[in-house]
Parts: sequence; C-alpha cells; structure tokens
Amino acid sequence: MNKLNRLNFSGGPGALPESVLQQAQEAIIEVPGMGLSVLGISHRSDWFAAVISELEANIRTLLGLPNDYHVLLLQGGATQQFSMLPMTLLRGKAHPADYLHTGYWSGKSLPEARREGPVHLAWSGEAGGFRRLPSDDELSFSAQAPYLHYVSNETVEGLQFHRVLGRDDVPRICDMSSDFLSRPCAAERFSFIYAHAQKNIGPAGVTVILIRDELLKEAPTDLPGFLDYRMQIEAHSNYNTPPVFAIYVVLLVTRWLLNEIGGVVQMGAINRSKAELLYHLLDDSDGFYRGRAEAQDRSLMNVAFNLDSPERESQFLAEAQAAGFSGLAGHRAIGGLRASIYNALTLSAVEELAGFMDDFRRRQAAC
Amino acid sequence: MNKLNRLNFSGGPGALPESVLQQAQEAIIEVPGMGLSVLGISHRSDWFAAVISELEANIRTLLGLPNDYHVLLLQGGATQQFSMLPMTLLRGKAHPADYLHTGYWSGKSLPEARREGPVHLAWSGEAGGFRRLPSDDELSFSAQAPYLHYVSNETVEGLQFHRVLGRDDVPRICDMSSDFLSRPCAAERFSFIYAHAQKNIGPAGVTVILIRDELLKEAPTDLPGFLDYRMQIEAHSNYNTPPVFAIYVVLLVTRWLLNEIGGVVQMGAINRSKAELLYHLLDDSDGFYRGRAEAQDRSLMNVAFNLDSPERESQFLAEAQAAGFSGLAGHRAIGGLRASIYNALTLSAVEELAGFMDDFRRRQAAC
Repeated sequence: MNKLNRLNFSGGPGALPESVLQQAQEAIIEVPGMGLSVLGISHRSDWFAAVISELEANIRTLLGLPNDYHVLLLQGGATQQFSMLPMTLLRGKAHPADYLHTGYWSGKSLPEARREGPVHLAWSGEAGGFRRLPSDDELSFSAQAPYLHYVSNETVEGLQFHRVLGRDDVPRICDMSSDFLSRPCAAERFSFIYAHAQKNIGPAGVTVILIRDELLKEAPTDLPGFLDYRMQIEAHSNYNTPPVFAIYVVLLVTRWLLNEIGGVVQMGAINRSKAELLYHLLDDSDGFYRGRAEAQDRSLMNVAFNLDSPERESQFLAEAQAAGFSGLAGHRAIGGLRASIYNALTLSAVEELAGFMDDFRRRQAAC
Repeated sequence: MNKLNRLNFSGGPGALPESVLQQAQEAIIEVPGMGLSVLGISHRSDWFAAVISELEANIRTLLGLPNDYHVLLLQGGATQQFSMLPMTLLRGKAHPADYLHTGYWSGKSLPEARREGPVHLAWSGEAGGFRRLPSDDELSFSAQAPYLHYVSNETVEGLQFHRVLGRDDVPRICDMSSDFLSRPCAAERFSFIYAHAQKNIGPAGVTVILIRDELLKEAPTDLPGFLDYRMQIEAHSNYNTPPVFAIYVVLLVTRWLLNEIGGVVQMGAINRSKAELLYHLLDDSDGFYRGRAEAQDRSLMNVAFNLDSPERESQFLAEAQAAGFSGLAGHRAIGGLRASIYNALTLSAVEELAGFMDDFRRRQAAC
C-alpha cells in the first residue's frame, strides 16, 4: 500500500498484508504459471484442489490441529453458522445448549439458535451494557447441554476472553470471527471453531470452520445439501462452486503468517504490543480517552473508547480521517470510537495512530 | 490478458472482460479515490452503498426491469437458491410446484425442492439422455401450482430454451445462472430469476436474484434470517457482510455491458455469432465433430460435442491445451467435449478455436 493510502482501522473488513495484496493483484491477471485469471480458473482444477489442500495444511500447522478435525471453507459468513450449528446440533434436543450473551455478535446468534431448539442463557452482560465479561465464579455450565456456544472476541464492544471457557465433557463451540489466527487459541479444546475471513485472514466471502469429527456423529441427514456439514466435508469444501478468489487470498495470508510472521505465537506477541500501546495511551490520558471495556477483558483486536462528548468524538473522527486514519468510528449499534488493529495492521501504523491521538489530546487541552 | 494467457473455454468460472480485470486489479491496491483496498473497504461505507445502488440500477436498465422487482445479491450460489426457494414458496403447500428436469443442473434442484414440499415433474429428458428440450406439445402446467421452476440453459448438456415457458397465472421461476445478461430474457414475465455470477457476469461468490414483490406476500416469517428474502431485501443485500469484491466486479461487468457492448441485445447478437460459428463447424465436419444437443435446443453458451472415440477426444484435449485453449473437457458428469463461450469470450477467440478445430480435423483425416 503506498503512502497516499489510508490506514484501515475499520472493524472489518480489515486490512490485508501488503505482500498478500500484491500477489492477489497479480493473480487477477494470471495465477502464477497457469495462464488464467484467478477469477476465471476452474474450481475443479488441480490448481484449486492444491490451494484447498495447502490452506488446510497451513491452518493445521498454525494451530497444531489434531487429525480428527475437518477444515471447511464455506460461504455465508458467521451469520450462516449461527443457524447451521443449531440446525445440526440442537433440533429436537431435550436439553438446552448453553449460550453466552457477551455483546452484539453473540446477541445475533441467540435468536437463530432459539429458532432451532432449546437455549439456556448461561450469562448475559446486557444489564451492564456489555462492558465486561463474566468471571469463572459467575459461570456454571450444564453437563447435559448438547454444546456451549460463545464468541471469543466481541468486535463491537471491544471485549475478549483471555481463557477457554466450559467443561471438557461438553462440546465447546466458539465464534472466533474476529480473533482467529491472531494468537494461539488452544483449538484442540474446542469441538467447533468458526471464523469469517474478513478480520484477520482474508476478504469477505469465505468462512473457515474447524470441526472435530465426532461432533457430527449424530447430525441429521435431512438437511439441505448446502447446510449439511458432512456433505461439505465429503466434497472438500467444493460441494458447489466455492469463492475461489477469497479462498486463494486466505491461503496467501496463511503463507504470510507462516513465512513472514513465523506463526500465531509471534502474531500474538505483535498484536499484544499494538493493543498495549493504545490501552496505555488511554489509561495515561487523565480521562480524556475513556476505554470502554473493563481492563481485564479488553480486546487485543478492537480498542473501543469514548471522549467526553459526541461532539468531540465527531471532531476526532473528522481530523483522523483527514490525517489518513480510516474506520475509527464505533459500530453503528453503540457509537463512540474504535481502533480495530487486526493482524495486517502493523505496529508502526498503530504508533502513527497513537501519535495522532496524543497530539489531538494536547491540542484539545490547549483550547 | 496478454497473449501468453490461455483462452478460457471452461464451463465456469468463465473468463471476464480484459477491461474489467484491469479495474479489478487496480482496486486490489486502491479503490479509485478511496485510498483503501477493495478487499478491506467497509461494507457499511457510502462507497459500497453506491456500488450496490449502481449495480441494481444497471441491471434494471439492462433488462428493462419493472419497479416492482427487487434486486438481491446473495452468497451460496444457485445451490442455495435450490433450497431457499422451496423453503419460502413450497413448505406446507397442498398443490405441487411444477419442475422440469432437462439436465444436470435442473436435476440438482429437484431433491432439494422435494425436501421442502410437493413437486410435480412436468417433464423429464432423462430417458432421452438430455439431448433435447420439450416442445410446447409435450408440456402442460397446472394452474394450481405455487410456481413453475426451470433452468434456462443447461451448462453440462449444452441445451438452452429459446422461448419463455409456463402460464401467465402461475409464477415463473428460472435459474438463469449460465445465460443471465447474455441476451434479452423477458425478465418481466418471470416472478423470480436467479443467476450465480461466475459464468457471464463476475467471479464465483455472489448470486444475483430478481424477485417480483408480490411473490413474497405469503412467505413464511420463521425462516433463519439469512434464508429470508424479505430480510435480505430490507437490508439492501447487506444483511451480513456481503462479498464486497465479487459484487464490485459484477458492477464493473454491468458497466462494460452498458458502455462497451451497448446492452443485452448487442451482447445476444455477439453470442449468437460465436455459437453459430462453432455449430456450423460441427455440422460441416462430415460427422467428425458430433453436436450433442438437437439443433433446435442448442445452447448459445455451451457447445457440447463428441468425437468418435474417447481416445480421440483425449488427443483433442491435449492438443487444444498445448495450443492455449483451456477448459474444453466436458463436464465430469458426462465427459466428451464442450466449448463454453460466455459473454467475455470474444468472437476472435472463438475464431481461433474454430481454426484449431478445423486444423485438428484435417490432420486426423490425413492420418
């Protein structure tokens, strides 16, 4: 990205690494060695089978994923998973699944789950305005639940779990859409992980799903084909024409994570440095910048904060935009401000933002 | 596309116009004037709202679409529509919907429809090996049917309807995935048209849907949100993060159709010339090239043919590949040979193929 381009601090779709963008750009005209555009190459070609295969292997390597997991690439975003999951695991069940309501996105999963079967709300942060996550003392999970579902990182409110929840005898299911491959995630402790690509690992249009094989052993056989995980697994994510380009870009991102970053441990360390820089700036601002989340539950991906008035927030946004910082408005559901600092946003980009924020505060204090 | 690149005669994903590929390539680094990559720009931005709006307007202009139609852009391909449609219009109905089984793709729609409600098979070409389509004399449609469903162009077998089927008092629903915007289609006579992008109008990952408003007046209200056409309409195709890049490319293709080609009438004339060139070559080959479909039902999009033996077909494919013609193998379901000549394949590209085919025949005759 050249210097004229804005730095993308948007809640998503997020920025992608420069080297990935360059390779994606080349592939629009010709996939290296293939003589065809990536937009026109067959999803039944040997080339694409190798893309799927390498991408799956890269994800296994990055997460140390055991062999009894399937890796799927589907369309429809996390939203489709909000329904596909309970269609598969909750319909006709007597015992409710445990769900956590920790913010905007987990809230979206609830009505779709309730449409399919019984749901037990194991904890809700709604009364507290979603400014914190539950402690272990506040949680008790049922041993009879078909599964536990939660969202690891609430993009809108800037909340993130820094531990694994749940019981080892009940399948853990986690929406990791906004922190997948941003740090180690103990994937082997989950039965099902899903993540749309457009935060940390690619463009909008593809969702990565990891499923432990035994989770599907009692899955219904009467679902529409495209909503049937087993049919998608059998077809190696090629049940019907997949989004070839988006999948190719996700492959490029996994190569970047492996070869340029070094893995998810290294990525996590970089992401922690970026987040600490901004949270320290908030904490050291004498209350000028007010962090939204309680300190122990702060997200390393989405730094949500406020100023003392909506007017000052508007001024901040206008000046930030003019200075080349894009996407700093909070989610339309809650307003305020938010710096989303996904994998591809570099520490130096975050330092630039921190410099702007420091400067903005000093100028406001001088008024 | 430079001269080193292969010509893409694949059944899909198909080729895209050179000018579209160039603009798509530029947008990977920066959307003109926006300072952000198209892969990272927000789907809630004014820019993307304008993309959706212009794309919708372009489709309305290209097809002369009346105002009581909605234009939707969804994920999941035609396959998702095979289920969404009967979920919406067939569940709990007493009278069966009329379905035609004219080839591979209409065959895929049948089990998904039957899963949701009663289906009447109004005609099947299966016994005849899908080498022709029904004449009007062979068809009678029920006035009580919730709808009639058929596929306008069977990609695999190379069959295409050159007229509109059905009754004016029963909603017509048509899968136009492989001939949408390739010629005028009398859209105003259909209640519902769907077409995935990856043949004539864009990359894989997005599906265009035209719905007459009244078709949804009794649609159920208890479907999962992402499968509910009304929720998608209300959200202007932005119910959850849409495939921004794929949609942008479809916009570029509609601009190309309007500004460089001149519209669907002109596109249809070009496509007819391309198809006639190849069909004349088959017909004038003294039986060397054997057209698969009966003459009156031949597709202008997919020219399916055979040689006298699988061995000769393999030789044809190998020599064609070496000469720079890609994707000429028939669909894996039926084998043989197939030249798919979607919108972006130029007449001169088809002339090149015809030259190769002529030459191949002469060389074989000389053996």
